[in-house]
Amino acid sequence: MATKQPVRRRGRPSKNLLGPKENRERLIRAGVVSLTEKGFVATGLLELLQSVDVPKGSFYHYFESKEAFGLEVLASYDSYFVRKLDRWLLDNTRPPVERLRDFIEDAKVGMVRHRFRRGCLVGNLGQELASLPPSYVRRLRLTFAGWELRVARCLADRHSRRTELTDAEDARAAAFFWIGWEGAVLRARLERDVMPLELFAERFLDQI
Amino acid sequence: MATKQPVRRRGRPSKNLLGPKENRERLIRAGVVSLTEKGFVATGLLELLQSVDVPKGSFYHYFESKEAFGLEVLASYDSYFVRKLDRWLLDNTRPPVERLRDFIEDAKVGMVRHRFRRGCLVGNLGQELASLPPSYVRRLRLTFAGWELRVARCLADRHSRRTELTDAEDARAAAFFWIGWEGAVLRARLERDVMPLELFAERFLDQI
Repeated sequence: MATKQPVRRRGRPSKNLLGPKENRERLIRAGVVSLTEKGFVATGLLELLQSVDVPKGSFYHYFESKEAFGLEVLASYDSYFVRKLDRWLLDNTRPPVERLRDFIEDAKVGMVRHRFRRGCLVGNLGQELASLPPSYVRRLRLTFAGWELRVARCLADRHSRRTELTDAEDARAAAFFWIGWEGAVLRARLERDVMPLELFAERFLDQI
Repeated sequence: MATKQPVRRRGRPSKNLLGPKENRERLIRAGVVSLTEKGFVATGLLELLQSVDVPKGSFYHYFESKEAFGLEVLASYDSYFVRKLDRWLLDNTRPPVERLRDFIEDAKVGMVRHRFRRGCLVGNLGQELASLPPSYVRRLRLTFAGWELRVARCLADRHSRRTELTDAEDARAAAFFWIGWEGAVLRARLERDVMPLELFAERFLDQI
């Protein structure tokens, strides 16, 4: 049974027949990619809208400002990243240090897959602080705090008996991990090589 | 004896009576500050010219392009930074590990003095790779290689007898140092606190 074709108007057809909610989601997803590759300042709204085929000028229909948009992009990246961390670090079938190693391996694969074009969105924004709205500082700090907590909890699983002392040491090791890991991601992009990730990870895992 | 005052014209007097060489130097110095605080993309040439009172539109009299300007700024920062490193790391009156500690202390003081507004110019550019001219990649890699060499040499001074093995290990430790240090500078800016620098430095120095 043949269905009647809709009448096509002349000219380039608009591909975007999606509702406001879908367009909003697509803008956030495109924002995650752009902020991960280029950062906040270099992300142009026009280019972003074009990339997801949303009409120019409708940005403020979806978001109050570039500042508000960036905060939603950051929240979206954080929740994606926390899910990824939990997938690896809460895997009770693996010893704690191996779980961390699994996360690191997955990150290496990800950087290679994106041909070292993408860094860490949170690291990128951290480096751009001088150009960011003040509201971002608190959000970025909270993000790192959440990631640190997850690594600290994983490290705590190594101890048959946790004490205040082991908890404090695990918290410090977790803080050290994220300090160095952001540096390693930066260098891996520059060298276009996983070597900095491996070098940092090996020495870190050796000493805990 | 009273000297005759020069006739003042109306309006804001032009303060800039310097020659082309001086203006060029001042633009580079202002560029170092701006790239250290904000990075390459967020550095506006107009703002830069205004900050050193060089007439708008005369930028291309001094530099071929923003790309060429950035490379000179990077070279200027590198030579300043290498002098700083050599001052601390070649100080034979101090044990090698103390020399590294001295450099770290100096860096901490510097970050506090600039109220955590300034990061590492090389780290900033590393994070902006996607938006930088391709010529920057090689230059940034060479810069890190030079810094690594200096730390590796300092670490080598710990051994009464150097071997291929100790040299390889010192090179790896030096690479690890710069990977983590860039991450620590990033986090210190975000937290507006020297804690990340101290945490990274202590654990690094403990394990070498």
